[in-house]
Parts: sequence; structure tokens; C-alpha cells
Amino acid sequence: MSACLCLVFLFFSIVAEATYSPGGFHHLSSLRQNKKASKSKQELPFETRYFPQNLDHFSFTPESYTVFHQKYLINSRFWRKGGPIFVYTGNEGDIDWFAANTGFMLDIAPKFQALLVFIEHRFYGESTPFGKKSHKSAETLGYLNSQQALADYAILIRSLKQNLSSEASPVVVFGGSYGGMLAAWFRLKYPHITIGALASSAPILHFDNIVPLTSFYDAISQDFKDASINCFKVIKKSWEELEAVSTMKNGLQELSKKFRTCKGLHSKYSARDWLSGAFVYTAMVNYPTAANFMAPLPGYPVEQMCKIIDGFPRGSSNLDRAFAAASLYYNYSGSKKCFEMEQQTDDHGLNGWQYQACTEMVMPMSCSNQSMLPPYDNDYEAFQEQCMSRYGVKPRPHWITTEFGGKRIETVLKRFGSNIIFSNGMQDPWSRGGVLKNISSSIVALVTKKGAHHADLRAATKDDPEWLKEQRRQEVSIIEKWISEYYRDLREEEQ
Amino acid sequence: MSACLCLVFLFFSIVAEATYSPGGFHHLSSLRQNKKASKSKQELPFETRYFPQNLDHFSFTPESYTVFHQKYLINSRFWRKGGPIFVYTGNEGDIDWFAANTGFMLDIAPKFQALLVFIEHRFYGESTPFGKKSHKSAETLGYLNSQQALADYAILIRSLKQNLSSEASPVVVFGGSYGGMLAAWFRLKYPHITIGALASSAPILHFDNIVPLTSFYDAISQDFKDASINCFKVIKKSWEELEAVSTMKNGLQELSKKFRTCKGLHSKYSARDWLSGAFVYTAMVNYPTAANFMAPLPGYPVEQMCKIIDGFPRGSSNLDRAFAAASLYYNYSGSKKCFEMEQQTDDHGLNGWQYQACTEMVMPMSCSNQSMLPPYDNDYEAFQEQCMSRYGVKPRPHWITTEFGGKRIETVLKRFGSNIIFSNGMQDPWSRGGVLKNISSSIVALVTKKGAHHADLRAATKDDPEWLKEQRRQEVSIIEKWISEYYRDLREEEQ
Repeated sequence: MSACLCLVFLFFSIVAEATYSPGGFHHLSSLRQNKKASKSKQELPFETRYFPQNLDHFSFTPESYTVFHQKYLINSRFWRKGGPIFVYTGNEGDIDWFAANTGFMLDIAPKFQALLVFIEHRFYGESTPFGKKSHKSAETLGYLNSQQALADYAILIRSLKQNLSSEASPVVVFGGSYGGMLAAWFRLKYPHITIGALASSAPILHFDNIVPLTSFYDAISQDFKDASINCFKVIKKSWEELEAVSTMKNGLQELSKKFRTCKGLHSKYSARDWLSGAFVYTAMVNYPTAANFMAPLPGYPVEQMCKIIDGFPRGSSNLDRAFAAASLYYNYSGSKKCFEMEQQTDDHGLNGWQYQACTEMVMPMSCSNQSMLPPYDNDYEAFQEQCMSRYGVKPRPHWITTEFGGKRIETVLKRFGSNIIFSNGMQDPWSRGGVLKNISSSIVALVTKKGAHHADLRAATKDDPEWLKEQRRQEVSIIEKWISEYYRDLREEEQ
Repeated sequence: MSACLCLVFLFFSIVAEATYSPGGFHHLSSLRQNKKASKSKQELPFETRYFPQNLDHFSFTPESYTVFHQKYLINSRFWRKGGPIFVYTGNEGDIDWFAANTGFMLDIAPKFQALLVFIEHRFYGESTPFGKKSHKSAETLGYLNSQQALADYAILIRSLKQNLSSEASPVVVFGGSYGGMLAAWFRLKYPHITIGALASSAPILHFDNIVPLTSFYDAISQDFKDASINCFKVIKKSWEELEAVSTMKNGLQELSKKFRTCKGLHSKYSARDWLSGAFVYTAMVNYPTAANFMAPLPGYPVEQMCKIIDGFPRGSSNLDRAFAAASLYYNYSGSKKCFEMEQQTDDHGLNGWQYQACTEMVMPMSCSNQSMLPPYDNDYEAFQEQCMSRYGVKPRPHWITTEFGGKRIETVLKRFGSNIIFSNGMQDPWSRGGVLKNISSSIVALVTKKGAHHADLRAATKDDPEWLKEQRRQEVSIIEKWISEYYRDLREEEQ
């Protein structure tokens, strides 16, 4: 349990660090805070296995042959041999979290008689090539990246099919957030291993200035504006008040009291980042079943926050209102007496993603004056320095678009490739870096006006709205088409 | 000059070593022996440049940032800005050899107003990341592989286009033999960087038992059979005679005399491999302009060899006849007084390919009793041991098909990908590992009944037969289609 708590704390410390660091440190996934919740629920219906992987698939140095054990989860309850295999391409965290929050695959497995496999991403969860030392230095962390992860998946899937004597089974990959990026890229790079990909909330265009740098924060602002113009204005004005309080005599002490910190404050930025983090992550999970953190509360979390803000009497302090809204996110159960805003970074915890953000996952951002969050410019130099001092690495900001493409994606992929679904909910700020238009007859975008970060991958509930049901229905119908086309091809081939 | 000779000698020593080593050590390219010839001709019409590359694109360890300088050749005489860029994806050797032997690109550049670029493959020619120490050990050689090479090409092309302020230029990649495999794989993995690939004589299916293990030697036997049944029989019988001589008293001495060696013989295998090497490589270059080694002689080299064999008086020794035929290959100018059959391996020379064959390019072969060459079975264990003792590496025999596919390629690529030409001449034994049937409307096979190893990529000559002219015409017409489609898409995009 203490491990869980530690991770929860760490998550917050990352939010705090991340929000106004030069862009790119945002965690893509919204699942951090679920670990405790999901564990306390029923056990996951998966068997845990481990697969030996080479450390480095793209070199043959002696070190490359170092073997580590990659964790994966498997469920064969619904499978008939020869039937489809549904693989979740794990993202930046324990694979259990993603399995627990991707109920969609379990929901549809019986219909497809599909085998379910969730593969953990190297350097996360238990899949750490150097054990506890994995995150210690650039020498070890150097092998953490998306291409190695995709190669892991390719090798594991191929071996699994062979061991199951089911080599003709079609494989469909699924992923949300960074896992969705991996799913889409896996289809593009390994079409001989997967027949298609459902990439949910996958911001594959959030690189190399393909989308406007302000789009992420603009989307968050829009979410709050849509809920209430007043709410948007209150939050937007709260930063000045925060600044004013902090520059008073004993300002930090005052702020610490206002924000009910457990251990005081050393910097006004901790308070500012804590506050803005609540709005950023709430916008990402702006859908009832997505926002597990507030599971006891009904409705949409952004609306909930705005109700709190709008409910204050006229003339109340904007900062007090914003703080009250943020408390909903950090303390939905109401049981917390104080808040931790300045945690130490755990030395073998979640910083894998920050490392990835410092090497390949360079997703530049800035925050405009029009946004409700404190404005900042993208400062690449500062970002680079920060990466160097933290991890001893120099980012390769053009690498992802060189390796996977992204620029002029419509023109490239309308003549190349097939069978990818890009699903997005426009209330999710990451949607702005996603593929939002159909590219060809089989590389399609399923976009909903509402919808949070990979909400479609969650388990269905009786309260799901029609637009979400419809999105999932379309996904199932497209996947059915891929699979029946595949079996038709197979029969033709065998004749 | 001594370097050239050294390379020529080394080439033979590799042939000798390679032919009956457990399969997979065959050099793909037929260009070794041309270096002297091409250098003595006119200077190549290219400017030489160097591009800084990271040692390792797929990791972020401190060592991965080591920079080396990759050589490339460029010719902009025919180019208009915004026009196409034709890139040769260099294979296992000095890029100058490939430029000198890929006259096709120079021939068609004016018509397309194309920029020509020939990029040298890492660890070959001057593009050695660790200088003279590059080939010393698995620590350094570990970074020699096809995926790193493709990433080099992607990065270089992208940077070049940026520097030329011609980012909208369409890029077409060309390659022959291993370079052709790289061209095809580059289109599959980097469709956002190249609009299409001409992959000439690219045996991308010669892995993981996709094609029968005997196909390579069967094809060679067929070539000789087609020239003369008697010739085929003589060669087939010569091995017994070689064996008989070598097991006589003073057999090696006798054999050495018969084979006119300069320094005697330590093993009968050297003589056998020397002899069979002549037939293997002659079959690969069985076309007048392909067989540069016998440029002074007219006609097809296999036919020339068989004329010599068939011209002996009835009752002559089969071994003497076979030796005389092999002398045509090793001594076409007639100036050699003796033959070197047992050279030392050059310690920083061509063994890059053997290393690749020991790691990723595992192309298993066997030689059946029906073949005219000495039969042998594929012995994977022995191969693996040889790789371990020579380079300290363990082969990854399934890696190429995991990374690039190949199994059931028709079914996979008829639903994915576009714009690849696979050209093959059926007299080339490597054709048996190539794509020989159209896969889709834009992934096509251009196959000629005659035709040697990437003969289509050679410069046109007035003596070229109609089938070769036609093959090249089709290639030009398909590339024209890709390019005009690209510009049409670009115009639509800009509207």
C-alpha cells in the first residue's frame, strides 16, 4: 500500500514540476491516480506471465544481449484457437493500471472469441531491465524508448503465436494515450504482425510544431469556458491574486495557510503548479467513468469544478474559488486534512516518462494570454538544459517525426498504409495533437464533441451516453471488417 | 593501388571461405572486383560530402551520441529546385563502387531533372564510426546493421532537403542487391520520407526458410544447364575428381600444381571453394555489362565458361575443364602466372558483411544432390558456433522477418503499402529470394527471364538487348507515375 501512496504522491509532484516547465513533461496518461482504486476493486481476470527480451534490438553489442523479463497479462477465457488476438500495447506505467482501465477489450472479447494480451512497456512496472537501478542513469535509461518497445511487442507477439500454435491468428492492437501512439505506430511499422490498430487519444502530431504549441492549453480553457464563462474568468484571474499574496510580507506563509499545505511552501511556483495541475488533469478526464479519481461524485468533473467556483458568493476571492475547485481533484473524498505540494522525486518511480520527454517524446507547448492558465513561452534552450542537468541527455526533437512521420500525414498515408482507427474526444486537450480527419477509407478518425482521454477504452456502463456507445459500436464494426477481410485473404491464400 | 589489390584478394578469400561455410556468408553484391576498373575509368561525376550522424539512433546512452561522418556523393547538374531527389541506399562497400555501377540513375536524371545522391552505408568505405578500429570487436561492430543504416538515410535525407530549401521535393530510393533490400525496406518503414523504391535484385525473402534453402544453388545449376547440359555435367563431376586427387599421396601438392597456386595449398577445401566461387559469382553477373570482370571478352560469361569446358577434347579430365573455366573468372586478362587461394583475412576490410551475416542477415542455404556444386546441408549449430568464435556474437535468425516481414508477403502487402518495384533477372541466383509476382497495383515485380544481379541499374549501352531496355522503360514509366501523382497531391494540399 505504501508503494501505491508513494506513486500517487509522485504523480502530483510530477504535475507540479511539469505544468510550467518548458513544455513536454506532461504525462499523457490519466491513470496514475487509479492504482489504489483499481487494486482495491476485484482482482483483474488475467494471468501474469514474463517474457525474456533482449535489452537492445537495434544493436549487437555484447550488452544488447542482456536479457530482462517483460511482464504481460493474458486472458484466454473467450478464445478459440485460431481466433483473433487483441493486444494492448502498454504505455508509461504498470500494465495492471492499463488492463484495469481498458474494460472495452474485455467487453468485446466474447463477441470476437478473442485472446486478450496486455504487454507492459519496458522500464515501467515490473519490466525493468536493470531492476531497481534501471532509472539511475543515462547508461541504463538509454534503452527506454518507443522503438525498442515496439520491437519488444513484435517479438513477444510472434513468439506467443508460435507457442500457441496459432500463427494464423489475426492480431489487433489497442492503446490509449501514449499506448495509442504505440498502437498506431505498431501498425505502421509492423503491418506483418498486426492487421489493424485502435489508437485512442493518441497525440501523434504533437511533435515538431505540427500542431500549434498553444493548442493543449487552449483546449483546456475551452472546456472550462464551455462549462461556464464565469468559471473560466475566475481561474484566469486567480493567478494574479496568487502572485499578489506571494509577494506580500510573509507571502509564502500566507499562501501555505490558504492552500492548507502540510509542510509549508518553499516556492510560490509549487502552489501555482499544484493549482494548474488540477485543471489540466481534470480536463483530460472530463467524463464520469474516466474520472475515477472522483468516482464517488456523479457527472462531469469540469462541470463539478465550475459549480463550486460559481457557487461562491459574489465578490469572493478568485484564488479561494480556484483553490476550492482544485481541492475537488486532490481531495474528492474530503478526508484530507492538508496537501503535500513539494514532494521529492522518487528515485525509481515514474520519471521514465520525463526521461522519454527529454529524449524522444519532445512535445513542445506554450500557453497564450488567451488561455485561463498562466501564460508561458516555449523555451527550448531552457528545456534542453533541464534535460541535460537532470538526465545527462540531449533531446532529439526531430527524431519522432523522422522515425514515424507526422508532417503532412494525410498526404503520406492516403497513399500508404491501412487499418488504423484514431479515436478522440474533443474535450480531451490531447485530442488537438491527434488525427481528427479521415485519411483514407481504412485510416479513419472517430471524433466525438464530448469525450475525455481514451474514454472509449473504458468498460461500458449503463450510464454511458449515446455518442460514446456509438463510437464504440463503430470501432467494433470496423474491427469486425478487418478480421473478416483477413480470414477471407487467408482462405484465398490456402486455396 | 595496393588497397585495391588487397580488396580484390580479400574478395577471393571471402568467396573461398564463404561458399561452403554453413550458408549465409555469400556476398550479395557483385561489385567487389570492379573497384580497380571503375577507378581507372573517368572520375565519377559526383561531389563528395560528409554528414554527421549519431552512432545509435535507437538508444540514448551516452555512447549513442558519438558522432561519425557518413560519406555521400551528390550530383546536382540536372536538378531544378523543387524537383525530385533520387537517392541510392548504399550497401556493403565503398559508395563509389555503387555509384560507378549504377549508371541507370545518371542516365535518367536529365529526364527527371533529378538530384542524385549516393549514401554510403555505415561501417563501409570511409563511413567508419570508430575509424580503423571499427571492425575490431563486437563492441564497435555492434552498431552495424540495417535498421541503423535506414535511420541514417532518413536523417540525412531530411537534413539535406532542409538545407536545400526543397522540403517538398519527392524522394525516390534506388538500390541493388542488399542496397535493394534497403530501398524496399526504406519505403516500407519511412513512407513519409520516400514516395517509392526501385529495389533491384533484392532477396528480401531469403530469410527464415521463406524460400527453399536449395534455391540459390539450384538457380546456378540451371544457368549452366541452360548454357550446356554437358557443361553442367562436367562441373558436377569435377568435385569427385578433386577429391580423388587430393586424397592421393602428395595429393595437396598435386592439386596445388594443377591449380597453379602461388604458395601451395594447406587444405583441399581452399581449392574446392576457389573453384565453386568462380561458378557462383559468374552466375550472378551473367550479363555482358554486369560482368565487368571480363569486360575485354564479349558475350555472356556463363556461356563463355561453358564454351571452354565444351571445347576440350573428348575424354579430358573434368577437373581440368572446370579449372580452365574458373580461370576465365579469376584471370580474364590472361596475365596471371599463379593464383592465390589462401589469403589472410584483412583485419579492417570487407568482413562487415560477414558480421552482418552473423547477426541479422542470416540467409540459410543448402546445396542439394541435384545441384552441380558440392552438396551440403544447412548446419545452423555450426554456423552459430562459427559466428561466436569469429565475432563473439549470437545470430538472431528471426529478427529480419520480425522487423521487416517477409512471410506471406503478398497477403500482408496487398492490404498495406504502395510504390515499390522489385526487379529481378532470373539468371541471377539471388532472384529466387526476391519478390517475383505483382503484389498490388503499385507494388510490382518486373521479372526478366534472362538478366543478372541488378543489371537494370547499370548504365545503358548500345548493345543492351530489348528485354533489358523494356525493363528499364517500365521502371522509368512507373517512377514518372509516382512523381506526377505526388505533385498532384501537393497541389491539392496547397489549395
